[in-house]
Amino acid sequence: MNKKILLLLGPNLNLVGIREKNIYGTVTAETIENDIKSYGKRVGAEITVFQSNWEGAIIDEIHKARTEYDAVIINPGAFTHYSYAIHDAIKGVDIPFIEVHMSNIHQREEFRHKSVTAPACVGQIAGFGAYGYQMAVDFLLNGCTECQS
Amino acid sequence: MNKKILLLLGPNLNLVGIREKNIYGTVTAETIENDIKSYGKRVGAEITVFQSNWEGAIIDEIHKARTEYDAVIINPGAFTHYSYAIHDAIKGVDIPFIEVHMSNIHQREEFRHKSVTAPACVGQIAGFGAYGYQMAVDFLLNGCTECQS
Amino acid sequence: MNKKILLLLGPNLNLVGIREKNIYGTVTAETIENDIKSYGKRVGAEITVFQSNWEGAIIDEIHKARTEYDAVIINPGAFTHYSYAIHDAIKGVDIPFIEVHMSNIHQREEFRHKSVTAPACVGQIAGFGAYGYQMAVDFLLNGCTECQS
Amino acid sequence: MNKKILLLLGPNLNLVGIREKNIYGTVTAETIENDIKSYGKRVGAEITVFQSNWEGAIIDEIHKARTEYDAVIINPGAFTHYSYAIHDAIKGVDIPFIEVHMSNIHQREEFRHKSVTAPACVGQIAGFGAYGYQMAVDFLLNGCTECQS
Amino acid sequence: MNKKILLLLGPNLNLVGIREKNIYGTVTAETIENDIKSYGKRVGAEITVFQSNWEGAIIDEIHKARTEYDAVIINPGAFTHYSYAIHDAIKGVDIPFIEVHMSNIHQREEFRHKSVTAPACVGQIAGFGAYGYQMAVDFLLNGCTECQS
Amino acid sequence: MNKKILLLLGPNLNLVGIREKNIYGTVTAETIENDIKSYGKRVGAEITVFQSNWEGAIIDEIHKARTEYDAVIINPGAFTHYSYAIHDAIKGVDIPFIEVHMSNIHQREEFRHKSVTAPACVGQIAGFGAYGYQMAVDFLLNGCTECQS
Amino acid sequence: MNKKILLLLGPNLNLVGIREKNIYGTVTAETIENDIKSYGKRVGAEITVFQSNWEGAIIDEIHKARTEYDAVIINPGAFTHYSYAIHDAIKGVDIPFIEVHMSNIHQREEFRHKSVTAPACVGQIAGFGAYGYQMAVDFLLNGCTECQS
Amino acid sequence: MNKKILLLLGPNLNLVGIREKNIYGTVTAETIENDIKSYGKRVGAEITVFQSNWEGAIIDEIHKARTEYDAVIINPGAFTHYSYAIHDAIKGVDIPFIEVHMSNIHQREEFRHKSVTAPACVGQIAGFGAYGYQMAVDFLLNGCTECQS
Amino acid sequence: MNKKILLLLGPNLNLVGIREKNIYGTVTAETIENDIKSYGKRVGAEITVFQSNWEGAIIDEIHKARTEYDAVIINPGAFTHYSYAIHDAIKGVDIPFIEVHMSNIHQREEFRHKSVTAPACVGQIAGFGAYGYQMAVDFLLNGCTECQS
Amino acid sequence: MNKKILLLLGPNLNLVGIREKNIYGTVTAETIENDIKSYGKRVGAEITVFQSNWEGAIIDEIHKARTEYDAVIINPGAFTHYSYAIHDAIKGVDIPFIEVHMSNIHQREEFRHKSVTAPACVGQIAGFGAYGYQMAVDFLLNGCTECQS
Amino acid sequence: MNKKILLLLGPNLNLVGIREKNIYGTVTAETIENDIKSYGKRVGAEITVFQSNWEGAIIDEIHKARTEYDAVIINPGAFTHYSYAIHDAIKGVDIPFIEVHMSNIHQREEFRHKSVTAPACVGQIAGFGAYGYQMAVDFLLNGCTECQS
Amino acid sequence: MNKKILLLLGPNLNLVGIREKNIYGTVTAETIENDIKSYGKRVGAEITVFQSNWEGAIIDEIHKARTEYDAVIINPGAFTHYSYAIHDAIKGVDIPFIEVHMSNIHQREEFRHKSVTAPACVGQIAGFGAYGYQMAVDFLLNGCTECQS
Repeated sequence: MNKKILLLLGPNLNLVGIREKNIYGTVTAETIENDIKSYGKRVGAEITVFQSNWEGAIIDEIHKARTEYDAVIINPGAFTHYSYAIHDAIKGVDIPFIEVHMSNIHQREEFRHKSVTAPACVGQIAGFGAYGYQMAVDFLLNGCTECQS
Repeated sequence: MNKKILLLLGPNLNLVGIREKNIYGTVTAETIENDIKSYGKRVGAEITVFQSNWEGAIIDEIHKARTEYDAVIINPGAFTHYSYAIHDAIKGVDIPFIEVHMSNIHQREEFRHKSVTAPACVGQIAGFGAYGYQMAVDFLLNGCTECQS
Repeated sequence: MNKKILLLLGPNLNLVGIREKNIYGTVTAETIENDIKSYGKRVGAEITVFQSNWEGAIIDEIHKARTEYDAVIINPGAFTHYSYAIHDAIKGVDIPFIEVHMSNIHQREEFRHKSVTAPACVGQIAGFGAYGYQMAVDFLLNGCTECQS
Repeated sequence: MNKKILLLLGPNLNLVGIREKNIYGTVTAETIENDIKSYGKRVGAEITVFQSNWEGAIIDEIHKARTEYDAVIINPGAFTHYSYAIHDAIKGVDIPFIEVHMSNIHQREEFRHKSVTAPACVGQIAGFGAYGYQMAVDFLLNGCTECQS
Repeated sequence: MNKKILLLLGPNLNLVGIREKNIYGTVTAETIENDIKSYGKRVGAEITVFQSNWEGAIIDEIHKARTEYDAVIINPGAFTHYSYAIHDAIKGVDIPFIEVHMSNIHQREEFRHKSVTAPACVGQIAGFGAYGYQMAVDFLLNGCTECQS
Repeated sequence: MNKKILLLLGPNLNLVGIREKNIYGTVTAETIENDIKSYGKRVGAEITVFQSNWEGAIIDEIHKARTEYDAVIINPGAFTHYSYAIHDAIKGVDIPFIEVHMSNIHQREEFRHKSVTAPACVGQIAGFGAYGYQMAVDFLLNGCTECQS
Repeated sequence: MNKKILLLLGPNLNLVGIREKNIYGTVTAETIENDIKSYGKRVGAEITVFQSNWEGAIIDEIHKARTEYDAVIINPGAFTHYSYAIHDAIKGVDIPFIEVHMSNIHQREEFRHKSVTAPACVGQIAGFGAYGYQMAVDFLLNGCTECQS
Repeated sequence: MNKKILLLLGPNLNLVGIREKNIYGTVTAETIENDIKSYGKRVGAEITVFQSNWEGAIIDEIHKARTEYDAVIINPGAFTHYSYAIHDAIKGVDIPFIEVHMSNIHQREEFRHKSVTAPACVGQIAGFGAYGYQMAVDFLLNGCTECQS
Repeated sequence: MNKKILLLLGPNLNLVGIREKNIYGTVTAETIENDIKSYGKRVGAEITVFQSNWEGAIIDEIHKARTEYDAVIINPGAFTHYSYAIHDAIKGVDIPFIEVHMSNIHQREEFRHKSVTAPACVGQIAGFGAYGYQMAVDFLLNGCTECQS
Repeated sequence: MNKKILLLLGPNLNLVGIREKNIYGTVTAETIENDIKSYGKRVGAEITVFQSNWEGAIIDEIHKARTEYDAVIINPGAFTHYSYAIHDAIKGVDIPFIEVHMSNIHQREEFRHKSVTAPACVGQIAGFGAYGYQMAVDFLLNGCTECQS
Repeated sequence: MNKKILLLLGPNLNLVGIREKNIYGTVTAETIENDIKSYGKRVGAEITVFQSNWEGAIIDEIHKARTEYDAVIINPGAFTHYSYAIHDAIKGVDIPFIEVHMSNIHQREEFRHKSVTAPACVGQIAGFGAYGYQMAVDFLLNGCTECQS
Repeated sequence: MNKKILLLLGPNLNLVGIREKNIYGTVTAETIENDIKSYGKRVGAEITVFQSNWEGAIIDEIHKARTEYDAVIINPGAFTHYSYAIHDAIKGVDIPFIEVHMSNIHQREEFRHKSVTAPACVGQIAGFGAYGYQMAVDFLLNGCTECQS
């Protein structure tokens, strides 16, 4: 049976492909969303995408994920750097979370080096563009020994 | 006449009793809500509970409290540690606010030691579990000399 | 043709004139809104005001501004000091943003000295009360050479 | 049977009611002591008060409390901010300690925001004046499930 | 009667238009000076410009301003970041000071983010090029309610 | 034709499976090495493994990689946190480097949160155990658009 | 009538003249005590000296000073750098306190540069040896306009 | 023979008695200057006063002091907090320097707590108003054993 | 002739064997005292033990040690981390001091890593339980070349 | 049967007795090595000495120690202050490590106060010269209850 | 044709050879000036020396250097550590600047380690006494490829 | 007789001319080596070059330099920023060391601003490309008065 995975995208990630192309490339958010869903189907994962610029919406979604998904891939956008509320939300949910950043946050401004959400996740992937989402899916399907249902 | 008190609960507090039981215990958010309301009735306070994972919703509620309540007991959850917006909201409202935390935040991670909302409140209670809400109610009814109507 | 300008107001700015009058004066938010709109009409700008206590609402509005406005004047309220998400939103939009604060944030509490949103704006105006909004409008109409349509 | 509670007061708390009345009010230390004892009698607690300006005296008293009291309410005064020795003493004694401050230490000078003793206590109450001692007594009698004899 | 305003320019501002054109543009210091004087005449202000690379000269000029001007617009150049002596001088003079920076100091090197002079001024304007001086003049004529003679 | 990839392992990684099993698991370094080589063969990569506890040996190997490999996957072990020399070595070589950590360094001691080598790499993967090496291989084969020969 | 002044000496000051002569000189504590008393008699002050290595004893003495002395000259020794309890004690007493250090604390180890007690005093004198006590006496008799009885 | 003493006053000290009277009192700079000169005559010191808002002028004067004065009393004003050049100048001159501040700098803004010039002086006097200059004169005449000619 | 050594124990060390057994073991303070005295007799040292929770008592004892003992072994307990007064006391006494901690302070809370007393001692021993006292005795008898009488 | 102990010496310790004699004394590294071996023989320990200026060599040796020695005494030299790689190596080996420094690192430059390797050891001995190695041997033979074979 | 070089000397450098001889040696400023001019003649450079204790004078001179010199060798004295104004002046002038310090500033007080002017220069030379000026001249004549006229 | 000088080059300096040409130029390490040797011959110095990416190799070489060379010119590469072991090695050798960096480290990343090795050297030269090595040679031959054999 297919694994149900939520791809949770934080603020401004709806503008990928449009804004700051030198950092995020020219592939649009919509294409990325479709690509990862197709990829999921091919490898055995039913992927739902939820994007919001609202911290509260993301926390609510995390709470719902407790019963509706097997795992979450999260790119918290700028919330990564200050939302202890999202950190707490993740800790309150028993399924595995993978943090993904498209850009290499270690090469950018100082404030992006620190993640307050990563300590609540299984691990973090940063710097591989939209491909990072596939890497997270693969790990959840094949590498995460305590995720098998 | 009964005092009208708003119990304002921040992000993830709806999961109390379910998540991180080693910290918050096994009594559910719903039970805590009912208990404090019953307790209020017994001692002469009409208590309304409002929980949200949305910072904006909490600020709106604080604004409404100006005309609808006599006092507010607030557990801002993780917003405690970074929401200067809630800090400002409290300062803009003339009724007394009491900050309550169920766990002893001074014994937990470094980032939980600092409160940006406490300076805008009458005082802070931390470490006494759900009983802390009762302590705050008692203070508002019996100990807060400038709260008498 | 008139320039279309969005005046974007962050948390608690709806309480101006009511709360903390020693800092913000006694002119109400509503009056300020009307004044700046009238002023805009007089000098050739169609000004829309949007206030919210919700960070997500402000980010959504910034995104919409990409196609609906020529420029944005933003007073992010307390979000100024921690919302990297708003910072990123501004960077994702190509029209000019001007940051305005009514009070002189450099004279107030330590935490208000730092702005995480200003680096994404054309510039910052602080300390001139509601007049600061007029100053920003004037700059957008007359001083900003790359804003001419 | 009545619970035996020690109220342990640190340096300068003998001057309450005399010094810095704008912060601590005009009720004298003696009155506060009598009030809390009377209150204790009424609700079922035998309260002993011990005040000292001497760190060593307070540590000795904490050691004695191991066998002579059921619980301790402590207001360490300025020792709160640097006495790791008191911190260690509390940790060496198995009965519950409640930290109380009359003023809201989060609203005062920077150095008062940090407590080195609170991490060794059950919790902290700050900002409710002398009423804070009653709140602590109530918690020990009614709210502290692991304090029942 | 016209308002008398001193435009006080700090070190290296005589080189504007010549040095670092990518930051300050190509309009020369002389042109800026003439433009602001003309602008002043048009809107009802008699503007005197004084530039110096000498901290002491600027302090002396501030002292003189006490009796000779109605207000001062100051761009302290790099003195902004360390001259507590200028800070003290401004505090010693009762007329209003407006701090102006041509560039957005919040987008540049770390050391330029902090102003030791701004806390002594009515407010700060940064990032609008030479137009910032006009904004300050406008505020002094129309927006500064306590500047009316 | 197969891609030639160097897997470069830093100090103490030869003890994986033996030391600190609660962090690194019980699969031995030898098994991990064989697994990743087999995996490489299956997906089209010829993987060479080089482990050393000697910083100089690692730098020399990085220099050689310039002409002998198409890409490098590096787990610098504890060198991650202080070896600016390895950082410089990576910057001196034009082929892509991927940094991998088996454990989630964001959940461990403070000193492990910071990487001085990551800013010189394409990206960082942390927290997925030995599976992280596969994720890096996959990216190099399929996701890294500027790695195609 | 003679002014009654308490000279309050903190820890290790009984060893002056014996220990660390390169810093404190060779005049003994006893001689200094006699000298300042004689000096007091000559200029119209009855000086009592109290030295203790016990923080509590010093706080008690400060409390007594409220009714028994006109002013206090205090050299808190090493307590200068951490005793917030002495700071609070001084604040609780309405007579003037002068802080004196024999050595120039600004020329010694880093930890001696900061005084937590000086903010509660009229002023601080440092670096003039035992003569500093005379300077303090002179100020109390002649320079302190709000000390006249 | 009379001792020749230079009283060296830094920026803004010419405004004492006019500016910030709540801090510096209402006695003018001119009166203070005359008073200290008269006092000097009475006790055997020929005092010259030199005030400047120019750091360079103060350094030049310090250099001249090497051959023209027996000692210097310096109130560097705000230069106290950043002028390492004055610090070096003092170190280059073999006569004794006494640093005096009229206000208790330890009670004021954080930036005034640190003195970069005091380590180059014999000692520091702070908080005793203009009387502090007399204290310094007395020390130079009577207390400074290595100043006797 | 036997060497006279003082073993000076700071706050809470009387509770060793009773409190926090996971850190300090189950051997009581009394047994440790007897053991070290017996050990001393066997190897040629007359050991006196003095324990106090009072900082002042410890300083007084250090002063007395100047004439009554050949050397001091000190475990300052929590005073290690803030008592500059004890640091000064040790510096005022010419006999050798050895600092001993039973636990490895480098493995515990951050605040225990720093010692303000160690810089005044010959050296520091930490982490070897009560055996550390024997190590110090041995060093004083056999290894400390400048301790021979 | 004799205990097998490795004495592991870090960079520059081969120059002891030659370099910086004011800190390390005049006894040469060779003599120290022979002395500790002789001492070992006398008290029942077979001591092997390994010195290297190469971090990698030290890590390799630590790995070998797992099966070849009963315990390690380590003086990591300057590696103490930055080699997290050695820290990790020690943690990967189950036999006890004792950290020894000949000089009192707490009395020297700031950077020597912190040890990144001590948290991985049983304890630390500092300031007793070469005698410190004997102290470590004695502890391993007589004081370390969990080292008995 | 000879290269025209300005040697710009900051505060207190006129006292070299007189003050602090243990640091700067006994060769006087005048001799150093003559020596470097002679040296310049010999190797093909016309060297002008300008010394001032006035920051403003140095900035003015830097501005003039734009048209009058080919290069500048600057020893900013203590201005090195805080004069952002000189930093800006250098950036505004297109000819090469070389920063020279006679002493090794990295071996002296903490505050001398940081240079705010060096980032605006080609490079920095420190610790070679007056010879450092020759080294700078040599570089300007022979090593600076973009200085050839 | 010729002076024997060791030019000691740290990690990655073998790649100069190949890597990061925008920083280090296009002249190869080999050419630089030959150039400096030829230059040495011309001016009277026999120069040996030793490059290594291994910290231990560099320390060993420094030790050998004690007896085999008259002076050392060292470019420690990235070791500059963390190798306290090299710092100690230099301090253990009595011949003069000159630190050279080809690039102006003060203009590059933050971590390159600090040198832990410079305090052990005569001085530091930074920013003059390969010409800096010649400058160091010249100083050793002509400017270093205590280097004459």
